[in-house]
Amino acid sequence: MASNPLLTEFFSGSRRALAKLISAVENDSAIAREMLDALYEKIGAAYRLGITGPPGAGKSTLVDQLAKTIRASGKTVGIIAVDPTSPFTGGALLGDRVRMAQVSTDAGVFIRSMATRGSLGGLAQKAQDAADVLDAFGKDFVIFETVGVGQSELDIVEAADTVVVILVPESGDSVQAMKAGLMEIADIFALNKADRDGAQRAVRELETILHLRPAAPWNPPVVSTVASKGKGIEEVWENIQAHRDFLLQDNRLAAKRKQRLEKKIRELVSRRLRQEFWDEEARQLLSQNLNNFQNEKLSPYRIVDELMEKFKASLQQKNEI
Amino acid sequence: MASNPLLTEFFSGSRRALAKLISAVENDSAIAREMLDALYEKIGAAYRLGITGPPGAGKSTLVDQLAKTIRASGKTVGIIAVDPTSPFTGGALLGDRVRMAQVSTDAGVFIRSMATRGSLGGLAQKAQDAADVLDAFGKDFVIFETVGVGQSELDIVEAADTVVVILVPESGDSVQAMKAGLMEIADIFALNKADRDGAQRAVRELETILHLRPAAPWNPPVVSTVASKGKGIEEVWENIQAHRDFLLQDNRLAAKRKQRLEKKIRELVSRRLRQEFWDEEARQLLSQNLNNFQNEKLSPYRIVDELMEKFKASLQQKNEI
Repeated sequence: MASNPLLTEFFSGSRRALAKLISAVENDSAIAREMLDALYEKIGAAYRLGITGPPGAGKSTLVDQLAKTIRASGKTVGIIAVDPTSPFTGGALLGDRVRMAQVSTDAGVFIRSMATRGSLGGLAQKAQDAADVLDAFGKDFVIFETVGVGQSELDIVEAADTVVVILVPESGDSVQAMKAGLMEIADIFALNKADRDGAQRAVRELETILHLRPAAPWNPPVVSTVASKGKGIEEVWENIQAHRDFLLQDNRLAAKRKQRLEKKIRELVSRRLRQEFWDEEARQLLSQNLNNFQNEKLSPYRIVDELMEKFKASLQQKNEI
Repeated sequence: MASNPLLTEFFSGSRRALAKLISAVENDSAIAREMLDALYEKIGAAYRLGITGPPGAGKSTLVDQLAKTIRASGKTVGIIAVDPTSPFTGGALLGDRVRMAQVSTDAGVFIRSMATRGSLGGLAQKAQDAADVLDAFGKDFVIFETVGVGQSELDIVEAADTVVVILVPESGDSVQAMKAGLMEIADIFALNKADRDGAQRAVRELETILHLRPAAPWNPPVVSTVASKGKGIEEVWENIQAHRDFLLQDNRLAAKRKQRLEKKIRELVSRRLRQEFWDEEARQLLSQNLNNFQNEKLSPYRIVDELMEKFKASLQQKNEI
């Protein structure tokens, strides 16, 4: 496998090969699968961070500052930034991303933006595969950055070892975060733009909500930050390291990663099953049933029975050939 | 099939049989599937409404008032209220529901609450099946009422012919609604608690956001309501009828229902495939692979290949027996 020239280049540390492999993963190209198989034995060393929060909370700025801090400690970083495009306006929700010059020109930092372009399905998978590539490449840290809006975005950060949720001191933001499921996934909270009015109150509000939770082995700290001025970043970084130390106790990190792998395998199985199931013949059978539905009023359950029978018969036929 | 005594009772109009059948659907009991198959030829006459919005917007009150209005026009109503329980607090998010006495004692109105209890998976399916039961029973209108929080809740209201999104005049509510995906699914907006401060401004804000959308054959109207005083309900009802008239043109309603049926069948297929796939043997094989992962570092894709091979072989074996 290592005879593949792209892989040889990749393992010799070529950024060009790294970029090519991530593109292959993103475009689901034919070589991606072969490459990923070959990479797997090299992964596991990178620590994965998920950074999320509502639009406008300052995620990119905080991620860039955090990358700088990590670099200052001599470690390398890969960033996977997922920019959702709204199905409502058709345009990018976050607008253009202007990355800090210091970070984007540093050879120790690799940044890749992935756009959702309406098809969120499979994006969490691709973001994870891209993280695997960065991991195998030798990056010490991989950061997933995504807006905390929908389930697919939550899936992306849930593939991280430590999740930082960024909020801003706007009225009701923490309540909205709770509703959006962000409270459940946060290991650390960063209250960004903490130089704004109401920041103190927002921190207290958040801490009050957190105290309502049953006591747990890890209680998410709330850190006040002003990412645009670099304030509080060091403290976020210290808390990330503390959370990593926590996970390294009692086999927690290994258990978490095992769970993540199980989830990934189950999702891949579901996707493969769907792909194999919905062949030309099945789609035609479905289409016929949908067209006849007004007249025949077959229950959907019976239509599914019929489709399942067809699937099993065709699998048997394929095996016999 | 009609020889089944419960079905005979059901088709004779027994509320007791109706309640039993919906419970069977909700509990996924063995008779549910048989009953649903038998009911299907009777469905299609009920018009389905979805009512959603953030917690505390006054959904139950508006639904009750709407049910009263529909009853006053001589039509019958079934209500399926989905109460989410938060995985965060473990308790009910909405608290106790106090239904208006007029509605709940009216024999022409049937109300069923379904609790999510943390397992949202399959709930949208069950709510739809319950609606099918109410439809076959002869209800003229079925109302899905659910809090607009997560994807599963959106799935529930998306199974409706007309969706009413309720908002309240609180700062940023319409922006939050946009983020939560509520704007995309609304056919009608009700701005409830319109006697509060800021209601006029909220209506204008909402209309501004709506005007940003590309022109469409149906442009969602914004109705101001004070559900607790019965204000604006008549206008909501008129808009629902207008939207129904719109759908009845150009085959839109039939196309919408066909699409909904297709989605349902595809989801049922995925569920069946998962059920058949993850038998004892597959779970063991997965478990072995997960335990060996640290040492072997097989790619998840290879593990999936192995699982798929096993699945196909076992299907063939079953067919041969």
